[in-house]
Amino acid sequence: MSNQFWSDIVGELKPYVPGEQPKEGLFIKLNSNESPYEPSPKAMQAMEKAIHGGLALYPEADATPVREAVAKYYDIAPDQVFVGNGSDEALAHVFNGLFRHAGKHILFPNITYSFYPTYAKLYSVPYKEVPLADDFSLDLTPYLAASSDEVAAIIFANPNAPTSVALGLDKIEQLLQAQPNIVIVVDEAYVDFGGETAIPLIKKYPNLVVIQTLSKSRSLAGIRVGFAFGQASLMEALVRVKNSFNSYPIDRVAQAGAIAAFEDEEYFQKTRKMIMDSREYLMAEVKRLGFQVLPSSTNFIFMRHPQYDAAKIAAALREHRLLVRHFKQAPIEQYLRVTIGTQENCENLVNALSEILSKGII
Amino acid sequence: MSNQFWSDIVGELKPYVPGEQPKEGLFIKLNSNESPYEPSPKAMQAMEKAIHGGLALYPEADATPVREAVAKYYDIAPDQVFVGNGSDEALAHVFNGLFRHAGKHILFPNITYSFYPTYAKLYSVPYKEVPLADDFSLDLTPYLAASSDEVAAIIFANPNAPTSVALGLDKIEQLLQAQPNIVIVVDEAYVDFGGETAIPLIKKYPNLVVIQTLSKSRSLAGIRVGFAFGQASLMEALVRVKNSFNSYPIDRVAQAGAIAAFEDEEYFQKTRKMIMDSREYLMAEVKRLGFQVLPSSTNFIFMRHPQYDAAKIAAALREHRLLVRHFKQAPIEQYLRVTIGTQENCENLVNALSEILSKGII
Repeated sequence: MSNQFWSDIVGELKPYVPGEQPKEGLFIKLNSNESPYEPSPKAMQAMEKAIHGGLALYPEADATPVREAVAKYYDIAPDQVFVGNGSDEALAHVFNGLFRHAGKHILFPNITYSFYPTYAKLYSVPYKEVPLADDFSLDLTPYLAASSDEVAAIIFANPNAPTSVALGLDKIEQLLQAQPNIVIVVDEAYVDFGGETAIPLIKKYPNLVVIQTLSKSRSLAGIRVGFAFGQASLMEALVRVKNSFNSYPIDRVAQAGAIAAFEDEEYFQKTRKMIMDSREYLMAEVKRLGFQVLPSSTNFIFMRHPQYDAAKIAAALREHRLLVRHFKQAPIEQYLRVTIGTQENCENLVNALSEILSKGII
Repeated sequence: MSNQFWSDIVGELKPYVPGEQPKEGLFIKLNSNESPYEPSPKAMQAMEKAIHGGLALYPEADATPVREAVAKYYDIAPDQVFVGNGSDEALAHVFNGLFRHAGKHILFPNITYSFYPTYAKLYSVPYKEVPLADDFSLDLTPYLAASSDEVAAIIFANPNAPTSVALGLDKIEQLLQAQPNIVIVVDEAYVDFGGETAIPLIKKYPNLVVIQTLSKSRSLAGIRVGFAFGQASLMEALVRVKNSFNSYPIDRVAQAGAIAAFEDEEYFQKTRKMIMDSREYLMAEVKRLGFQVLPSSTNFIFMRHPQYDAAKIAAALREHRLLVRHFKQAPIEQYLRVTIGTQENCENLVNALSEILSKGII
């Protein structure tokens, strides 16, 4: 399919394919790394209030009240916070606003968030993929050796997705020290489940951008709020791109929900602990069933079974009304990415896997 | 302000500056063309329900339920509807997905929505501005004479902003017939206040894109939903760009509100009629005060006073806690754009103007 009216670039795009969103109620969704818990009741209350006050008016264009609340939470300044319509929008503006330098390319791991090459195509940013180590950990060596004459930026998810493996903050700082002239973007979508955030390092490193989202640990995938953090002069590039793209990207309800979610620390701590506890349970159980599982600092696990084909396991789980994510790409085509649901969801999954493997139905 | 890490393009951007959003309650806002009425009560109910059901899950990625509701309303197919996070996002994707053809430029009026040149800069789309006629109407002649070897697209707002003047559907069709190889984008943000929508023409013209928004006539500026309409093969370019930018741009609450707003025809008709009635009142009254007013098919009027400076009137109105929009650019620097508020807002404005002019305080 093409068309004479399409921009030259459109035929070249490789759109991202998100995890399936089935009709609600039909499946237990363990395929998109959403939270199994409702958002904070205080966030829901704040959003209700926003619906009944002033929804005919445009939202605050720069989401300043949100930036203030989040800055307070992380003990940084509001102008060190940029708010996007989901972290995907923040990432898109990072690619557009910081990665496009004539004659330079960017680097990211060959196995990571698969939206990065899509953004790169959209903004015509040349890129090179750097292989992960054999154990799927991030080997810093090629990034430390990069020349800033050739490389504009390095981006990776930490903890990484879909591998669930985290890199220590000491390694991040080692990279920042070695590469003061390359933009370093650390995508922390999953950091609240056991990783260490690099946000405190932004004060020291003017080339660091940290990305976070409310879609995972704050149970707010449905309202689309994500962040970029960095020194004000870096964030200004994102602001300029945003104000050339959409004056009011964060709606009033989303702004109200985001602020209240950050103010409800108790609920946040409780739900993320429940997810981490269920993760430990699920890890132990699937190992008992013979799966090999990577160490996880996220709200999902990444696992393979030495005897059974991953695609077939995923299809069999679907028969049990359980959705997990399978990426048909080497070298991870034998792995499954399984989101941590409620404890009951995890138990359902273990029972289904147990039945599938024991009955030899795959 | 600049920075070694900014993309090459960032220094060139000319970000759009939206109308001032003051702290609520301090001013009567007649500066951003928002509706003075709350959204449909049914829309508010639907949004409340969305908050309490599944907000931890991502929204429907392509806003399919919204596309279905809007397609039904306009008697077109769902794949002829594209949903953006506000019409600004839909417009941005149109510039990126349809206007970038090597060696070609685009055309738009010299006085129109001032975001168009901003998008053009963002996507490196060369453009030429075509002067409006002396009476601020759109003169088709230069557009009819354009060569499709040089011109990729023509975009204009109809009714136009900030002039409030509408172009008849017969003229739009004349342009479409004359230019089958140029993308024609008709931005109908204000069409519900007396214009004629070009949506029925999309069946016949594969090069037509129509833009609409919920921010004006549907009283939903706070939730950010806008549309592009066109044949499926044109919309596919926007879908590909969108899926390379942000999988889930329209949040769950916004999707629920948008659907319910389109289903509440009675409220829509009632509120738009109230606004058009107040517009006729306001027009007559400001003319009585000596203002010259362009014919309006929008929820605002565009007026000048032959004896008084527009910037000074705007400043004096601000003293009366009334905000109107003044564009400091030739040839409209002596005009004021005044949003139609409630009948009471309009009366307040008339009283304030009457006092300002009679007391000679400017």
